[in-house]
Amino acid sequence: MPSQAINTSSRTPQVDDAGRLKHFLTIEGLDKAQLLRLLDSASAFIGADTEKQKEQASLLEGHTVVNLFFEDSTRTRTTFEIAGKRLGAAVINLNPSRMSTRKGETVLDTVRTLEAMDTDIFVVRDHASGTAHLIARHVPPHVHIINAGDGRHAHPTQAMLDMYTIREHKGDISNLRFAIVGDILHSRVARSQIAALNLLGAREVRVIAPATLLPTEIERLGVTAFTDIDEGLKDIDVIMMLRLQLERMEGKLIPSTQEYFRCYGLNRVRLNRAAPGAVVMHPGPMNRGLEIASDVADSERSLILSQVTNGIAVRMAIMAQLVDAAGVQTA
Amino acid sequence: MPSQAINTSSRTPQVDDAGRLKHFLTIEGLDKAQLLRLLDSASAFIGADTEKQKEQASLLEGHTVVNLFFEDSTRTRTTFEIAGKRLGAAVINLNPSRMSTRKGETVLDTVRTLEAMDTDIFVVRDHASGTAHLIARHVPPHVHIINAGDGRHAHPTQAMLDMYTIREHKGDISNLRFAIVGDILHSRVARSQIAALNLLGAREVRVIAPATLLPTEIERLGVTAFTDIDEGLKDIDVIMMLRLQLERMEGKLIPSTQEYFRCYGLNRVRLNRAAPGAVVMHPGPMNRGLEIASDVADSERSLILSQVTNGIAVRMAIMAQLVDAAGVQTA
Amino acid sequence: MPSQAINTSSRTPQVDDAGRLKHFLTIEGLDKAQLLRLLDSASAFIGADTEKQKEQASLLEGHTVVNLFFEDSTRTRTTFEIAGKRLGAAVINLNPSRMSTRKGETVLDTVRTLEAMDTDIFVVRDHASGTAHLIARHVPPHVHIINAGDGRHAHPTQAMLDMYTIREHKGDISNLRFAIVGDILHSRVARSQIAALNLLGAREVRVIAPATLLPTEIERLGVTAFTDIDEGLKDIDVIMMLRLQLERMEGKLIPSTQEYFRCYGLNRVRLNRAAPGAVVMHPGPMNRGLEIASDVADSERSLILSQVTNGIAVRMAIMAQLVDAAGVQTA
Repeated sequence: MPSQAINTSSRTPQVDDAGRLKHFLTIEGLDKAQLLRLLDSASAFIGADTEKQKEQASLLEGHTVVNLFFEDSTRTRTTFEIAGKRLGAAVINLNPSRMSTRKGETVLDTVRTLEAMDTDIFVVRDHASGTAHLIARHVPPHVHIINAGDGRHAHPTQAMLDMYTIREHKGDISNLRFAIVGDILHSRVARSQIAALNLLGAREVRVIAPATLLPTEIERLGVTAFTDIDEGLKDIDVIMMLRLQLERMEGKLIPSTQEYFRCYGLNRVRLNRAAPGAVVMHPGPMNRGLEIASDVADSERSLILSQVTNGIAVRMAIMAQLVDAAGVQTA
Repeated sequence: MPSQAINTSSRTPQVDDAGRLKHFLTIEGLDKAQLLRLLDSASAFIGADTEKQKEQASLLEGHTVVNLFFEDSTRTRTTFEIAGKRLGAAVINLNPSRMSTRKGETVLDTVRTLEAMDTDIFVVRDHASGTAHLIARHVPPHVHIINAGDGRHAHPTQAMLDMYTIREHKGDISNLRFAIVGDILHSRVARSQIAALNLLGAREVRVIAPATLLPTEIERLGVTAFTDIDEGLKDIDVIMMLRLQLERMEGKLIPSTQEYFRCYGLNRVRLNRAAPGAVVMHPGPMNRGLEIASDVADSERSLILSQVTNGIAVRMAIMAQLVDAAGVQTA
Repeated sequence: MPSQAINTSSRTPQVDDAGRLKHFLTIEGLDKAQLLRLLDSASAFIGADTEKQKEQASLLEGHTVVNLFFEDSTRTRTTFEIAGKRLGAAVINLNPSRMSTRKGETVLDTVRTLEAMDTDIFVVRDHASGTAHLIARHVPPHVHIINAGDGRHAHPTQAMLDMYTIREHKGDISNLRFAIVGDILHSRVARSQIAALNLLGAREVRVIAPATLLPTEIERLGVTAFTDIDEGLKDIDVIMMLRLQLERMEGKLIPSTQEYFRCYGLNRVRLNRAAPGAVVMHPGPMNRGLEIASDVADSERSLILSQVTNGIAVRMAIMAQLVDAAGVQTA
């Protein structure tokens, strides 16, 4: 699938003609009002009391959610499993590399088979860019696809939980300056964060990385690139760290873990170069002492555990809205 | 376990003295009325409205279903998992090759242990013929065994969903001619289909395969054997394809995938040799371009996705009837 | 983590200042009344009628239980999964060797992440002694840890289900003589059993093993050690067999399986050396013909399947009490 196709909203079927969300595939193609509506609706899923929880546990009652993870990710899969169960859905975990695709069945045959079992929501993770889009173009109207990460392309629910966490702790995004730090080149998280921040009118978005981990023409996405972290962090309100894939250490992209931490690791001294009260985020799991110092990760400036908590709520909100948009709940 | 024992209904304990179903192990040993009662009861589980779904979700409330898959099969396991959850049961998935049997525990010790946890239904899949029967002979009266495929012997829930699908799309089985095409020799699916079709009074049942994939004395089962597919499909109303195990390609049973497709693959031309309006079935997962051409699999004559949908309903009906027959629901 | 720390009750945070159970980590540090209260409360979870079951299924409604098994154990994991589901909890199974710890995340980061997803109970199994304690010292007050086996240290829920089973079948523990037979050296089960039996005032506790499988200074734990099983079983009322790890056969600790069975295997003749009516227990899975003869395992004197049944009930009781102690149910 050519990467151009992925970013063309007219070809991503995530919004229907009435402007309602049918799938959740990328931030691109959504408008600011849609993002804000999702973020606002997520609050109801944070700290709900027992009465409220019971009500929420009926929102997806009778529905089936399939976690279709062609690429393994226990962490993300678990958040969707918990989110689905708290909404009352039956959640089925599938890791199809071990199943039918090995037997010569294509991805679409797998999806069609599961769909024939009356699945309502597919949460899709794959190492290939575009898989969630491909599936979304081939399912009937009552089936909803959520992209849980596709190749280097997008990880939109991660971006949404990040936006929620920023608004919760730092207020209006249009007043804030952001820096995304780390392996920008390979990061679907960075791509979705940049799209969301720009859509929500961030005052400034910077990316900070060694030149080997910066895509060419990255500035086209509406960011300023820095290779010097100390310079890049100046006046920044929100520092969004990326996870460094240790397996890249063995290639030529990064000299060594010590050298990387010395040049790009976020420590206390660097944190202090940012704006007063700057906060730190990380999608997890962290490599302590590689991209982030332990004392920074555990400091009162770290929003890392808030991100996890909000991740459940945001995913519950997205699932609830997808099903509701289809008229199952309210029509 | 000698194969003779398997087929002797007096030794298969699936029906109690009052004629009620205690286990679901093979089609053999059941009578036509029992099959029809199961098929009729499955309709209630197709397209149920929200009110009906809630009612069904209480049928196995408080019950525990264990998917005991000594041989892995994500597809079949998932259908039983969904069926059990929609009936309100707690479903536990176990793949015992990774667990206790490796530690020296026998199959029966595993079953006795799980049974002591108040399990109500075991869904058993194994590569050895007779495992489900073996277990059924050793469990107490309130425990029910469903055979989800044992060696080359039987896959009775697959045959039942096939019968349901045929009746739904083509009406009374006694008016119809059937051809089962492919690896008859190794197929538990074929064995159960033949038994069900003959019990329900099919007008004719044929099997079509290369001579190397036909059991000797197959005609004793009440079928006519063909090695020429073009001849065998003549006047056939329902074509039941079998999945070809790719691993058999490397042996001497089949020359090559291209050669197999040329000689036995179901394509449009061959479909047109069958009776007008003939339909195509496949238990999945398909090898497109090997046993079946893609355009046939996706054509309006294909019932393949109906089979999947009906598979959930038929398994729900079987589980509900087993538990009910034990008097848990109605006594 | 030094082993001394593990056994010091002042440093094990399992009981709060009001004497209520916050975690369930070891038998050591609990008092007799606490043990008896747990054992008494477990009876309600045995043979409950439908009405009672529905009531119990609401005790952990809205709660999330995470089975965090760093070391795999399908059997123990399944009992906790069933126990949690019967209490109405959402149960998430995680086997973190396959997930984030491989990516460089520490155990505590894994726990903090899951905790941020509003997990209420962690059931922890690890090959290292002290892991459950380590976690318990770092979680907030509303999170409860259950030790499902840590290294050679403790397996307290196993000991509790054993105590329950003994009281059910043989009455008051203070009237009885016990022998624990097998690999005492490596057994966390034995350690927890000895602690529980002594706390409940057992008349006598013996351990029986080859000298190579007896810890030095074992008698400090309040037991008498025997290397001759025939002598050790004399007058014993309850024989508690341990599972022999087959992998130890290859080392120098045991000569051979035949030799071990000849010298230490429990057969009918040896069973008859014990007190009249003596019963046999085993935590499972058994090695038939290695540590125990098949006819003994299956005899009317064997309580092995009762142990399994009671294991679910005892674990339900522990979970219910932990959550209740936190005031969630009754405050």
